[in-house]
Amino acid sequence: MQAALKSMMSPRSIAVIGASQGVDKFGGRVVHYLQKHGYSGAIYPINLKATEIRGIRAYPSVKDIGAVPDVAVMAVPAKALLEQIEHCAEIGVKSVILITGMLDEVDSTGDNLQDRVLRTAAAAGMRLLGPNCLGLVNFVDKIAMTPSLAMETPAVKAGGVGIVSQSGALMGTMIARGTDFGVGFSRCVSVGNQSDLELSDFFEYLVDDDATNAICLYVEGLKDTRRFFEIARRAHAACKPVLAVKAGRSAAGAAIGQSHTGSLAGSYDGFVAACTASGIVVAADPYVMTLAADLLVRLPRMPANPGGIAAISSSGGSTANFADQIVDRALRLPSASAETKRKLEEWMPAEDAHIPVDTGAFRGGTSKEGIVKVLEAMLADDDVAAVVYAMTTSPRMSEYAAMVPEIAARMGKPIVFSMLAGGMGAPVCKTLRDLDYPYTENLADTFSALELLTKVARAMATPLPPMQLEGTAPQPPQDLPTGQVTESEAKRLIAAFGIRPAGEIRIRHASGMAGLSGVALPAVVKGVSRNILHKSEANIVRVGLKTEDAVREAAEDIFAILAEKDPEGAEGVVIQEMVVGEVELFLGARFDPEFGPLVAVGFGGIFVEILRDVAIATAPVTPEAAKRMIMSLKLWPLLDGARGRAPADVDAAAEAVSRLSRLADQLGERLVEIDINPLIVKKRGEGAVAVDAAAVIAK
Amino acid sequence: MQAALKSMMSPRSIAVIGASQGVDKFGGRVVHYLQKHGYSGAIYPINLKATEIRGIRAYPSVKDIGAVPDVAVMAVPAKALLEQIEHCAEIGVKSVILITGMLDEVDSTGDNLQDRVLRTAAAAGMRLLGPNCLGLVNFVDKIAMTPSLAMETPAVKAGGVGIVSQSGALMGTMIARGTDFGVGFSRCVSVGNQSDLELSDFFEYLVDDDATNAICLYVEGLKDTRRFFEIARRAHAACKPVLAVKAGRSAAGAAIGQSHTGSLAGSYDGFVAACTASGIVVAADPYVMTLAADLLVRLPRMPANPGGIAAISSSGGSTANFADQIVDRALRLPSASAETKRKLEEWMPAEDAHIPVDTGAFRGGTSKEGIVKVLEAMLADDDVAAVVYAMTTSPRMSEYAAMVPEIAARMGKPIVFSMLAGGMGAPVCKTLRDLDYPYTENLADTFSALELLTKVARAMATPLPPMQLEGTAPQPPQDLPTGQVTESEAKRLIAAFGIRPAGEIRIRHASGMAGLSGVALPAVVKGVSRNILHKSEANIVRVGLKTEDAVREAAEDIFAILAEKDPEGAEGVVIQEMVVGEVELFLGARFDPEFGPLVAVGFGGIFVEILRDVAIATAPVTPEAAKRMIMSLKLWPLLDGARGRAPADVDAAAEAVSRLSRLADQLGERLVEIDINPLIVKKRGEGAVAVDAAAVIAK
Repeated sequence: MQAALKSMMSPRSIAVIGASQGVDKFGGRVVHYLQKHGYSGAIYPINLKATEIRGIRAYPSVKDIGAVPDVAVMAVPAKALLEQIEHCAEIGVKSVILITGMLDEVDSTGDNLQDRVLRTAAAAGMRLLGPNCLGLVNFVDKIAMTPSLAMETPAVKAGGVGIVSQSGALMGTMIARGTDFGVGFSRCVSVGNQSDLELSDFFEYLVDDDATNAICLYVEGLKDTRRFFEIARRAHAACKPVLAVKAGRSAAGAAIGQSHTGSLAGSYDGFVAACTASGIVVAADPYVMTLAADLLVRLPRMPANPGGIAAISSSGGSTANFADQIVDRALRLPSASAETKRKLEEWMPAEDAHIPVDTGAFRGGTSKEGIVKVLEAMLADDDVAAVVYAMTTSPRMSEYAAMVPEIAARMGKPIVFSMLAGGMGAPVCKTLRDLDYPYTENLADTFSALELLTKVARAMATPLPPMQLEGTAPQPPQDLPTGQVTESEAKRLIAAFGIRPAGEIRIRHASGMAGLSGVALPAVVKGVSRNILHKSEANIVRVGLKTEDAVREAAEDIFAILAEKDPEGAEGVVIQEMVVGEVELFLGARFDPEFGPLVAVGFGGIFVEILRDVAIATAPVTPEAAKRMIMSLKLWPLLDGARGRAPADVDAAAEAVSRLSRLADQLGERLVEIDINPLIVKKRGEGAVAVDAAAVIAK
Repeated sequence: MQAALKSMMSPRSIAVIGASQGVDKFGGRVVHYLQKHGYSGAIYPINLKATEIRGIRAYPSVKDIGAVPDVAVMAVPAKALLEQIEHCAEIGVKSVILITGMLDEVDSTGDNLQDRVLRTAAAAGMRLLGPNCLGLVNFVDKIAMTPSLAMETPAVKAGGVGIVSQSGALMGTMIARGTDFGVGFSRCVSVGNQSDLELSDFFEYLVDDDATNAICLYVEGLKDTRRFFEIARRAHAACKPVLAVKAGRSAAGAAIGQSHTGSLAGSYDGFVAACTASGIVVAADPYVMTLAADLLVRLPRMPANPGGIAAISSSGGSTANFADQIVDRALRLPSASAETKRKLEEWMPAEDAHIPVDTGAFRGGTSKEGIVKVLEAMLADDDVAAVVYAMTTSPRMSEYAAMVPEIAARMGKPIVFSMLAGGMGAPVCKTLRDLDYPYTENLADTFSALELLTKVARAMATPLPPMQLEGTAPQPPQDLPTGQVTESEAKRLIAAFGIRPAGEIRIRHASGMAGLSGVALPAVVKGVSRNILHKSEANIVRVGLKTEDAVREAAEDIFAILAEKDPEGAEGVVIQEMVVGEVELFLGARFDPEFGPLVAVGFGGIFVEILRDVAIATAPVTPEAAKRMIMSLKLWPLLDGARGRAPADVDAAAEAVSRLSRLADQLGERLVEIDINPLIVKKRGEGAVAVDAAAVIAK
């Protein structure tokens, strides 16, 4: 496979099938861009009529070339495609890049064109990229096998950023915008409909590729999830950062909105959970992803311990605005050490010697030496992870900017240069591009990229969670029921995995109430029914019962309701101790067909819905990882003894999450979903109790 | 005043004091930019030695000119300033723009230089802008009285966006970046240290200025808050949108973090509350503010009813990414009507006929006619407030872009053109600039600007709240105590304004317990003490007491604790009914020295702290406005009967907020702060009860 990819990525000769003189057509642009960007191998334009295209001899068919091109770039209309594929197969072309799209539309009667193309290629041992893709660009070897208009740029630049994208237009946009900023790329691949070669093939290629130092992925759907994340783990082991934008987050958002508390979010969350478990950092915006990858490639890496983001600016207003805007982000200002403050005070009055630094406050005015020393002082501070140089319109901009690369390299931390004055700063940006130093153009992108850098630094420094936990996992009960199971059955299931359910007495028939005594008070009485999902609405839950008489009365009442509402499915009542604790959590797990078993934890009841305050991970998770999930919740201070509350038994809650994740892992695809809602977390040292549970088990 | 400003804004002649040949100095640049940008009046460079500067006759002093310039731009070092000011005063110059800064540093012994300058100017009736400012630019009349490097741009453009800024560098940055995008400005003023003329003077000028259609303010601190907001209300009445960035949000954030529940946030929140009450929309980023102002000036206004944001793109990936990113914002996608869907289906298969639209899905490929019809269909939909045209690298970009201005104008709604392909889209951007049509370059800015446009549309359509409520406000009790008042006193105060406190029986001395009977059970017993602020920590609160014996026992216990802990300040115990309700709110009010009385409402207890889920407004507010405050809270669904809860008495809660705001308004600066925490809101129709209250009244 790697040999096939290598040949497709670095072909010695390329046939462009459907080549044309004009650049308004795909085939014309492919020839043009190959020439323009310096391809040094042989180009064979294939065109039924022309004998020469863009100064190169053209052929009516690949069969007429008299040599076998390593790659055929296919840019003919769909109706002419199959014949050309057959010609390629005949002469033994190894790789075909299928720019042509709409393969489904053409042959809607009976046999599908794409299937026929695939069969023909497979029979000849020919690998396909596409269809419906924009090809690939190997920047390192100057091979632009693409009709993407991104190649209109005067000169592309080789560098360490690799891209694999399921959208050709987005790839083109990332390249075009990146190139403006001096971003260098290694190899960029548009995989289109992935009929044969797929995203993971090229992802793996980039992980093994010495020219690629950071990888950007635009993902719409994965063909083989397990393989994708195995490759991600290899990238992590090789310390090669991987960033991904995944389409479909909003659909997931909608799904969250519609689903009720019990159901976990859709597969976008599963993707994020699986990424987290394999070291991939998920981004929201493709351009910001490219920018962050560039900063990772061209700047020193941020230290792994989460420090603050310092800033220096030539304007007091910008300094204030920087400090104000950072509060909206998952970033913070550093707390300057006494040593740092002392160093700053050498250049400015004590009242101005704080971070962010306004060079306008320098005694005797801004000076190069002052800027250097202030940058050094900030970068030397252990609490500074990176510095932003926020440049507004000011004199000597280029001179100051030119000092930055050396200081960043010497101090070993990133200085993100942000040119806020637009076109006015064009000479500054040119200076930085000439020095091969990255820059940004506004604070929003700067902050977004720094958030990604912070996540990458943490991901790279954090060992990946084990695929399996240590020790032998408990086994589910032999007589595991299926379908929508009763509360009692769900509780037996979680108890088998060591999660403590609230104690209960089960009474099958109303007659069983007679002998009742010794109930722990106050108590809760609930009806058990296989068919009634919403117990409160059916009026078969009574809480806070303080006497045995009240319990008896409630049970009799519920028996009567059950007899009326669900005579078939009713299985009696349970009398349960009323559990009192500090906090109610929601725990859930499900099997995601794409991402495998997932486990979720959030604050119970209404907060799951209103605040969407839920952490999701791929199962299994260790108790330590489960605790980090709980600590990532917005309402975490509720558990941590905020405002004079008693600290809750977080360790017990984390243990329950970990155990539920083992359950999900053991049950695998048999588990449709399971919820514990609520898990009542008691005071520290007193444990956590599952008060209610529900599950759906596949038949 | 307006005459003085008009003369400063549109002078017939300008002296540049401290003019120089080179443009590395302020005075040199001022002369250069006046010439470069087409000033048609007389320029008098003043320089001790030179007889000619940049081809213009120079003079040693303003006194030598032989005419009186309307404006003197002062760019001399601080030590030479006073003499020049005296010269100007002597000959009767009306306006001086003081670029010179550091006036405090020079003369630190005894008399302050700035004071002397001010006195000299005042005696001569001369008005000052600055010191420490970057002057002003009157774009309409081509008068650039500034050394800002933003004027290096080849050509500035006159248009409807006016700026007043307390930071010269930020103003320069807004102009420079805006000019890149074809933004036209009316007048931009850097007010510096506001020794004489201040931000509000120029704000008022722009409100009355026919050339200005939208106003951007960068505010660090206001000299006269009341006047500022009166001007804002005039702008609102004139339908002229005002946007403001205020420095100091992060300090406020820190203050929120440190302060305990009882205290309202710092004055940034006061500023925002006052802005909301006077129609100003607050922005976070100066550049995004400029962008939004430009969209307001050059595009049709968004309809006031909050619709969704539609999008069209040439790339499926961009379409997906647009939908995914909009979920992070205070924006949403529109729900296309059946009619709109039908229109879309004329151009694409039914399964693709949704918003956002991917032109790649058009039957037979992207076409101009299809784009026009699809844009028309979306804009005609009542649920569409605006359309984003998200353009990635694709053929015929400029052609498609050129159609947009006419469609937007005809349909009367904004189409925000977003060129996502960077430099690759330069010809497209040029096309749009030539058509005087705005555009953006990334989705982050586009979304941020659209959020501001949505707020402006709402602000413009909403009548401003009255300065005074109708009807006679209740009066505070005559014997209003001062200092930290007791809970009972605070409750008497709120009761005087019609807020219902929990019923209580007050027992002054332990001996009074003997006759106790008829207590509403369960009950709460609390100690009353002027010196103990945190009752729970002092162990003088007992809740859930179910028998009169338990009440008596608790009271005796608390009397004993009070006798030990606060024998002087103790004032007995209160026995209070235990109030049960649906939701606990926190209500607060305080007098802000800058913004006057403020009122706040949030969810009680821990949520105020953890989620910062608080709405703040200037007092007084009507019950309707108070209800909108409550509805703006994140946890609002808790009150609205979410998940089978009983809907709470929101009207009663809103009435309580309004009444507390009247209290704050009546007490004025006598009110340091007052909290009701919690206000227990009962089921709809059952009212709301203040269970605890605390207040500090100024002596």
